Amino acid sequence: MDLKNYIASIEDFPKEGVLFRDITPLMANGEAFAEATRLFVEFAKKVGAEVIVGPESRGFIFGCPVANELKIGFIPVRKPGKLPRETISYSYDLEYGSNELHMHKDGIKPGQKVLIIDDLLATGGTIEAAVSLVKELGGEVVGCGFLIELLDLNGRDKLTDTEIYTIMQY
Amino acid sequence: MDLKNYIASIEDFPKEGVLFRDITPLMANGEAFAEATRLFVEFAKKVGAEVIVGPESRGFIFGCPVANELKIGFIPVRKPGKLPRETISYSYDLEYGSNELHMHKDGIKPGQKVLIIDDLLATGGTIEAAVSLVKELGGEVVGCGFLIELLDLNGRDKLTDTEIYTIMQY
Repeated sequence: MDLKNYIASIEDFPKEGVLFRDITPLMANGEAFAEATRLFVEFAKKVGAEVIVGPESRGFIFGCPVANELKIGFIPVRKPGKLPRETISYSYDLEYGSNELHMHKDGIKPGQKVLIIDDLLATGGTIEAAVSLVKELGGEVVGCGFLIELLDLNGRDKLTDTEIYTIMQY
Repeated sequence: MDLKNYIASIEDFPKEGVLFRDITPLMANGEAFAEATRLFVEFAKKVGAEVIVGPESRGFIFGCPVANELKIGFIPVRKPGKLPRETISYSYDLEYGSNELHMHKDGIKPGQKVLIIDDLLATGGTIEAAVSLVKELGGEVVGCGFLIELLDLNGRDKLTDTEIYTIMQY
């Protein structure tokens, strides 16, 4: 099953000059969606993940099914003002402005083996934030998994000391 | 397994006077999270769901695992500017201001049996929007499932002609 057949490529979205990889056709196809999840589950087993972390909101799409399949927990990384208990935060620069992500302080236990899952590895800003939050809480990032990697943007250069798994590359 | 044991109740969040029901402890517990998903899957089978719809972002938390488990598609309802292809939209009033939700025009096929899943049934604004979007595309809403129902807010009054399933009530 070639999962690339279920990705739509949209020119000039969200702004001119950007070729957007749209994962909604894959999600709309039950077989393709389940196959992507199965691949993530295999990777999670291989790296010995004890908990899944995923950034809001597209990190929930694959991260939650993987956690369920393995009957392990899922810890969300969210935008400011969304998590009601005590959080830690990480800020990073975007092309215009900056972004701040939060995680509950009790989300990760020291020494826990963490797999971070997101849909897309682009410049790597979001995953760098998630890795930093997990490490600050004493977790060990045993892997980072993405449905899509945009090779030109070199996001994987931001990820050291962890295994990277990407289901498809452009 | 009493899933209410995994819900934290947070006073005065996101603003004074609101008692927030925090589902993150449930998500962090693999057994509890998987049990909630199992209950949704049973409901999905009962109503004969052919596709799952879920509003961004907390509708993805249970909706995506349920779709995966049944090997059926998942169609996201998202905020403006997130879906790259042609969409339909629905606007509704909030206590302060208004909200607008979108769905891809090709998300639902006419006659398709749709189950909408979200974490919370409160005043019912979001689910009313999702139901309206599905119906506009010719889908049949065979059920609406929620982890939590806040009984005082009477959200279920906004839902007619469809089966409602709520895992826990407050």
